[in-house]
Amino acid sequence: MKKYRIVFVGAGNVATNLALALQERHQIIQVYSRSEESARILGEKINALYTASLAELIVGADVYIFSVKDAALPEILPQLPALNGIWVHTSGSTPMAIFDTYTQKYGVFYPLQTFSKEKKVDFSVVPICLEASDDQSYQILKDIANGLSRNVVSLDSDKRKYLHLSAVFVCNFVNRLYDIGAEIMQSQGLPFELLLPLIDETARKVHSLSPYDAQTGPAVRFDENIINTHLSLLNDDKLREIYQLLSNDIHDRHSNEL
Amino acid sequence: MKKYRIVFVGAGNVATNLALALQERHQIIQVYSRSEESARILGEKINALYTASLAELIVGADVYIFSVKDAALPEILPQLPALNGIWVHTSGSTPMAIFDTYTQKYGVFYPLQTFSKEKKVDFSVVPICLEASDDQSYQILKDIANGLSRNVVSLDSDKRKYLHLSAVFVCNFVNRLYDIGAEIMQSQGLPFELLLPLIDETARKVHSLSPYDAQTGPAVRFDENIINTHLSLLNDDKLREIYQLLSNDIHDRHSNEL
Repeated sequence: MKKYRIVFVGAGNVATNLALALQERHQIIQVYSRSEESARILGEKINALYTASLAELIVGADVYIFSVKDAALPEILPQLPALNGIWVHTSGSTPMAIFDTYTQKYGVFYPLQTFSKEKKVDFSVVPICLEASDDQSYQILKDIANGLSRNVVSLDSDKRKYLHLSAVFVCNFVNRLYDIGAEIMQSQGLPFELLLPLIDETARKVHSLSPYDAQTGPAVRFDENIINTHLSLLNDDKLREIYQLLSNDIHDRHSNEL
Repeated sequence: MKKYRIVFVGAGNVATNLALALQERHQIIQVYSRSEESARILGEKINALYTASLAELIVGADVYIFSVKDAALPEILPQLPALNGIWVHTSGSTPMAIFDTYTQKYGVFYPLQTFSKEKKVDFSVVPICLEASDDQSYQILKDIANGLSRNVVSLDSDKRKYLHLSAVFVCNFVNRLYDIGAEIMQSQGLPFELLLPLIDETARKVHSLSPYDAQTGPAVRFDENIINTHLSLLNDDKLREIYQLLSNDIHDRHSNEL
């Protein structure tokens, strides 16, 4: 496999995890971040140059990976020097076409995963969703993706938006529900760890049952006694609102079964 | 370990999974269900007698496990013949004291897990939360629980209510979010399986990071562009309401970090 020279624009959670994984087969030559401190931390971790100035970006890399907050990309692109190579972003929701007034070869390299700097991710099962302006660029992105994961898929910008939307529900919102569970446990002096086997089984279950068939709990049974007891235990209006909304929604979704 | 003679009152998801696990070391002598069909299916599965009549319950068992919808328990208890042995229920939210006008030895045997008849659960890591009217009964329940799981805990009715409330958030509501993800994927002709590595990592992550520290996504970054794009993709008012409520809640929870 060819060893590509890669520049990272961004040094956040996605960039950090992706750079750590890519450096095993490729050369990350430079890291840019608006924050020099963030650029330095990631640069030193992967033995790359770092900068907080877009004007200092190395122009001769094979691939530029833009891994910044979605809102930052339209601000950064007009400020870039004339960079060779393929420009890709890692965003679920930004269309590939955002690049087309700025360069010729571009694409999307979207790893469908939740990344935190504190936890290294095993990329081998992470779906990597690719899109490119042309076949040659696609092949290069596919080469790089295949080196990371056995789950590489081609996905256009429109479908990718919906995939990202689904991901927000099954990951970001799910994690907030874990956090609410942690808050309730803590309020009672109970260890959060007691919930882990349940969290694990809930995730494991949808490998073999559809989430619809896997649904359990007071809302699907419409056990009003329990629902009312639970609402009375919650002393936070927002948590009560979340409980009520999700319970009603589960009930509506399953009401034809009763 | 002593082999106990156990009667199940109830033949639903919890009863089915618990009976299948308990029969490996104990004798399930009878299954009652309001539905004779349900009683028969479980009874035949575990080689036990079955009945749809409370008057026919065998009076000489060691333990009676009431595993019915919470609302059904107050209706069943006054109709019971004089049963010997320890009476326990498997409910997260029903106080143990519900038994005290009906019998002398009683308790709670609450396995903190999500159960579906279609999926057999590995009990070895399931927390089993116990409570009993007296030490002798507690020891018997503890013996039985230790035979199933290495995670047996003593928990009073008040704490158990909060544990159950947490479980509704981290399991039942989480599963509904998986289901919403599945609905969105299906609407785009995308396979739900693409989300499984993300679902797994989201659950795995909270083994090593607190859910608070593990939070990622547009809401915690307060990426309004993405949030608005996502809201525009949802064509169901209720899903939009869930998206908005959880996004605002995540933002409020993390706003001190910005």
